[in-house]
Amino acid sequence: MVGYAKGRVRREDIIAAAAAAYGESGYRQASLRDIARRVGISHSGLLYHFPTKEALLTAVLERRDAVDAARERLHGPPGAAVLRSMVSLAAHNTDHPAIVELYSRLAAEAVSPDHPAHGYFARHYRRARDLVRASFTAMAEAGELRDGVDPDRAATVFIALMDGLQVQWLTSPDEVDMTATLRTHLATLLRDGS
Amino acid sequence: MVGYAKGRVRREDIIAAAAAAYGESGYRQASLRDIARRVGISHSGLLYHFPTKEALLTAVLERRDAVDAARERLHGPPGAAVLRSMVSLAAHNTDHPAIVELYSRLAAEAVSPDHPAHGYFARHYRRARDLVRASFTAMAEAGELRDGVDPDRAATVFIALMDGLQVQWLTSPDEVDMTATLRTHLATLLRDGS
Repeated sequence: MVGYAKGRVRREDIIAAAAAAYGESGYRQASLRDIARRVGISHSGLLYHFPTKEALLTAVLERRDAVDAARERLHGPPGAAVLRSMVSLAAHNTDHPAIVELYSRLAAEAVSPDHPAHGYFARHYRRARDLVRASFTAMAEAGELRDGVDPDRAATVFIALMDGLQVQWLTSPDEVDMTATLRTHLATLLRDGS
Repeated sequence: MVGYAKGRVRREDIIAAAAAAYGESGYRQASLRDIARRVGISHSGLLYHFPTKEALLTAVLERRDAVDAARERLHGPPGAAVLRSMVSLAAHNTDHPAIVELYSRLAAEAVSPDHPAHGYFARHYRRARDLVRASFTAMAEAGELRDGVDPDRAATVFIALMDGLQVQWLTSPDEVDMTATLRTHLATLLRDGS
């Protein structure tokens, strides 16, 4: 039990150190050796937990998803509140461009099934679409959506929009407002438009 | 004049050879040396036209934009026809995953102002938003949009959606239909919903 708990703590320490290193010097610059040094363990000790840079990066992104979900209460009952939480997630992201850039870059690199982070992104997109689809479905059943809005399509649109806005915003921060754009988009789907 | 025309031809040959090389072996694998060999010129001859890999890649993307615009008649008068053309561009892209992947990856890499392709993407997004905004504006003036649809926001959404759909589709081709999703999204903005 003690060994198991210690392994968990060590793993979390490594993930936290990696996230800090990526934020400071970028994913490419941050070597596993540097990250091991930050945690105060040997390079081979780190490799025991994370055999590749990509395995560690995937763990950083999984942890970010869990932290985002807890902070924004994304695990609540599906419905309008979940979608409003997704909009506040975008607002949160606006203050954290480094991790958004890392996520966007890796998402594009990992489209190929043989990329080590492919599994993460396939799961991440599926979970995100499922969450948003369930919320639009609940809203449709409650009569909150305009006629003709399909929950399944609307979910794919919403997730694609969040991703696409991130790249446009990172490219031209003064020309794109992620939060306001998402909020306006949601309003166009609502029966009362508010 | 002859020298100038020859320079133009040579430049176009290099761009075409680069596009072919990227499609076959990927951008990272395709060296300037390989591309020079395909065109039948020296490495230094190629460097005269394109001093870096990124300069050549940017030229390939600029040419793709020009070819897309000509094929889809994107230079016509702004309005619903232009937006339908953007949807058929997405349909065209569905048959060309290699260049879509290259574009998506580079867009994410080039968000930083010091990346050699940053200027291209800043221009590309601005032009795309301007084109789509002008079309939504024309449609609003013709009474074709639902009340409350803002042409400026709708343009940012449309371009972000195209980009975000590409990454989701490349990740999970069986779960995302780019063309149908864009078409459904457009329908939600129209007064008559068709």
